Amino acid sequence: MKIEKILKTVVKKNENKILLVVMDGLGGLPDPETGKTELESASKPNLDSYAKAGMCGLSIPILTGITPGSGPAHLSLFGYDPIQHQIGRGVLEACGIGMEIKKQDIAIRGNFATIDKNQIVTDRRAARIPTEENRKIVEILREKIKKIKGIEIIIETVKEHRVAIILRGNNLSPSVSENDPQKEGLPLKKIVPLEEGAKFTADVLNDFLNQAQEILSNIDTKAKTILLRGFSNLPEIEPFETRYLLRAACIASYPMYKGLAKLVGMEVITGLDTIDDQIVALNNLYDRYDFFYLHYKKTDSAGEDGNFKKKIAAIEEFDEKISRIKHLNFDVICITGDHSTPCALKGHSWHPVPLVVVSKNLIPDDVDRLTERACAKGMLGTIPATDIMYILLANALKFEKFGA
Amino acid sequence: MKIEKILKTVVKKNENKILLVVMDGLGGLPDPETGKTELESASKPNLDSYAKAGMCGLSIPILTGITPGSGPAHLSLFGYDPIQHQIGRGVLEACGIGMEIKKQDIAIRGNFATIDKNQIVTDRRAARIPTEENRKIVEILREKIKKIKGIEIIIETVKEHRVAIILRGNNLSPSVSENDPQKEGLPLKKIVPLEEGAKFTADVLNDFLNQAQEILSNIDTKAKTILLRGFSNLPEIEPFETRYLLRAACIASYPMYKGLAKLVGMEVITGLDTIDDQIVALNNLYDRYDFFYLHYKKTDSAGEDGNFKKKIAAIEEFDEKISRIKHLNFDVICITGDHSTPCALKGHSWHPVPLVVVSKNLIPDDVDRLTERACAKGMLGTIPATDIMYILLANALKFEKFGA
Repeated sequence: MKIEKILKTVVKKNENKILLVVMDGLGGLPDPETGKTELESASKPNLDSYAKAGMCGLSIPILTGITPGSGPAHLSLFGYDPIQHQIGRGVLEACGIGMEIKKQDIAIRGNFATIDKNQIVTDRRAARIPTEENRKIVEILREKIKKIKGIEIIIETVKEHRVAIILRGNNLSPSVSENDPQKEGLPLKKIVPLEEGAKFTADVLNDFLNQAQEILSNIDTKAKTILLRGFSNLPEIEPFETRYLLRAACIASYPMYKGLAKLVGMEVITGLDTIDDQIVALNNLYDRYDFFYLHYKKTDSAGEDGNFKKKIAAIEEFDEKISRIKHLNFDVICITGDHSTPCALKGHSWHPVPLVVVSKNLIPDDVDRLTERACAKGMLGTIPATDIMYILLANALKFEKFGA
Repeated sequence: MKIEKILKTVVKKNENKILLVVMDGLGGLPDPETGKTELESASKPNLDSYAKAGMCGLSIPILTGITPGSGPAHLSLFGYDPIQHQIGRGVLEACGIGMEIKKQDIAIRGNFATIDKNQIVTDRRAARIPTEENRKIVEILREKIKKIKGIEIIIETVKEHRVAIILRGNNLSPSVSENDPQKEGLPLKKIVPLEEGAKFTADVLNDFLNQAQEILSNIDTKAKTILLRGFSNLPEIEPFETRYLLRAACIASYPMYKGLAKLVGMEVITGLDTIDDQIVALNNLYDRYDFFYLHYKKTDSAGEDGNFKKKIAAIEEFDEKISRIKHLNFDVICITGDHSTPCALKGHSWHPVPLVVVSKNLIPDDVDRLTERACAKGMLGTIPATDIMYILLANALKFEKFGA
C-alpha cells in the first residue's frame, strides 16, 4: 500500500486511546417482506447514538465485489493489504485454536477420514466424529509420535473431525501436495514435493501418515487416516507495536480472532468466554493499552445461520453491552464489521460494511443511524477497509505532518 | 488491476444470467434554457423503474477528467484496465467492419486521398468518394495486389474514403511512420521504420503504395493514393470465457461494438440491424448464454450531432424497447453508458456516467430516476467503470470467498 512508503516518517506515539469494535458480519440485506435489513430492523439506540455523534461511511473489505474470509477481512481492518499478506489455511486453523506458531513452522489443516484396507477414502470426514473422540485420538497420537526425522510434530484437536498440525524444525517447506483425493471412492494420494527443497518435508509427512494410520488401525474409531492441506508458513507481518507504535490488546472470545490479532502483534487477553467477560476486560484494562480490538461474534453466526430474527437479537444484545463502556474516555471509537453476512445469503458477502468513527477531531455528519443505507450517505464515503486504521490514527493525533 | 491477482482463485461458474446494457454516450449536460440534462428531460418510465428497483451510482470511464474513445470505454465496462490494454486505431478500424484479425497481423487505417503528379496531397479525403466507388476501387486493388514480399495484403472498404488494411505474414512490426503529411499542399511522406526490425514492414508498405498508386492512376477516381496510419497489433486480452468463465453474447448492430466484443471473446450475433432486431435476438438467445452485452447507439449519435431533442427521443425510444425484455429473468441487470456524450459538447466527454444495477442480492437505494444528478446520490457511489463487471459477477454469485 502507498501509505507504507511514508508511514514510518509520520507515525508517533501519544497517550490517546483507540477502540476498534468489530461486529462480525455486520452488514446485511433486506428482508423480502419488510424491505428492511437486519440493522434497519433492530432497535439499537446506543449504536445509533454513535452514528449520530460521529462520521459514517461504508467500507469495502478487500476489493469491489470480493467476498472475504475472516483472515483477509481482519488484516484489512488492521491496516494491512490483504492481497499482499495472504494467510495460509493451515496458519489460520492453528491460529484459530490458539496454537503458537513460530517462524519456519509449517502449519497444516487436517481432517480425520475413513479409509478401507486398500487405502480408498470412504468418508472424508470420518462420520464427523465427536470432538471428545477427536481429543482422545489426538492424545494417543501425541503420545506415540513426537518427532520424525528430527522434526517436532504438534497435533491439536480443532473440533469434530478437524485437527491442526504444526511441524517444527529446520529445512521445512510448505510447497508439498495434499494427500486428499478430494472425492470419496478414490485412493489416498502420496504427498510429493512441489519445489526443490520440499522433498524432506514430503518424506516427514508421508512417514507421519504411515505411523498415524498404523496407530489408528488399532483404535476403535472411524478415523483411520488424516487428510492434510493448507500447508503454510507464518506470513511476514510487521507488528502493531513497530508499525503503529501502538500497544494493542485483543478482547475477543473466539480463537480465530485471537489468532489473527496475535499475527499482527496484539496482546491477546485470555479467559474471555462471553461478551460480558469482554466488556469487563475492556473496563479493567483501559489504562494499560493504546489500542483495543473488541470482537463480537454473534452477528456473523446468526447471518451464517440465515436467521434474521437471531441477527436482530445479536445486534440488540451488543447494543446493550456497548452502553457499558460509555464512561470510558476513548479518544477515538470505531464501530464496523469485518465484512457483511446477510441472512439472505447465509454466508459472508462482498457488500460494503457500515462504519462509524467517533472522535472530537472530526466533523459529525448528519447520519443518525448505523445502517447500510444511512451510512452510505455519510461523510466518510465508501472507502477501502484498509483506510480505517489510518483514519483512527489520524483522529488520535498519532501522525506527524508529512513534508514541510 | 489488483483484482487480477486473485480473480482466478475466486471466479466460479453458475447458471445465473447477467445483462449489461450500454446506452452509448448516455450522460449529458444541462440545456442552458431548462437547466435539465437530456436524461432529466426525457420521459422514460421503464429506465426509471430500474433505477428505483436497483442500486445507482456514476461510473468514471477511464480516469477522472479523461474523455474516452469507444475502445477504451468499452474495455473498462468489460472489466479490463483500458490503460494497460490499449487498442490500436488500425485494429479498431478493422474490428469495426468485422474483419478477422489474427495474432501477428498488422492492422492499418487508410484514407483514399488525392495527389497531383508531383505527389503533393491535394485532398486528404479524396473528396469523400461515395462508399460504392470505394468498394469498386478496393475490388480492383484486391484483384491486382495479393501478396508483397510474401506478406498477404487484405483490403476492406470502411465507408466513403476510408479503408482498413491488414498485413498478414511473418516478421511484421507496427513500428513504422505514417505517409500522411497531415496537411494538404505537402508531399506524401515515405514510410520509415521506427524501430530495428521494422524495415521489412516499411518496405512492404512503400511497395504496396507504389503499386496502388500505379493502379489508381489508371482509374477514373479522385482516389489516387492511400494515407496509412494507426499501424497496430491485436492487443493481448484474456477472453471472457477463461477470465470470467462466462459464455457471452454481443447484441450490437454497429460493427465497431461487435469488433470490441470479439476482442474480449464474446460471440457476436450477426444480422442485427436495428434495436428491434437486437431485442428480438435477446429474447431468442436468452437460454444460450450467461452474459449479454446489449449496445444501443442512438444516444451517442444524437449527442455527437449536438441535437438535444434527438437525444431525448433516442432515450425515449430505448425506454420503450427495454420494456420488451422485462419478462426475461436476468439475475443481474446493469444499465449504463460507455461514456457521456453531452449535446452541449457535440462529442464524447469525461463526465461520470449514470449507472444502475438491479439484482435480488443488493440493497435498493432511494434513487428513483436514471439521471446524472439522481445517480450521484446512489449507494454505488462514483466508481471506476472497471469495477462494474466485478459488481455484476458478485451479484450473480459468481465469486467464491477469498481466503478463509
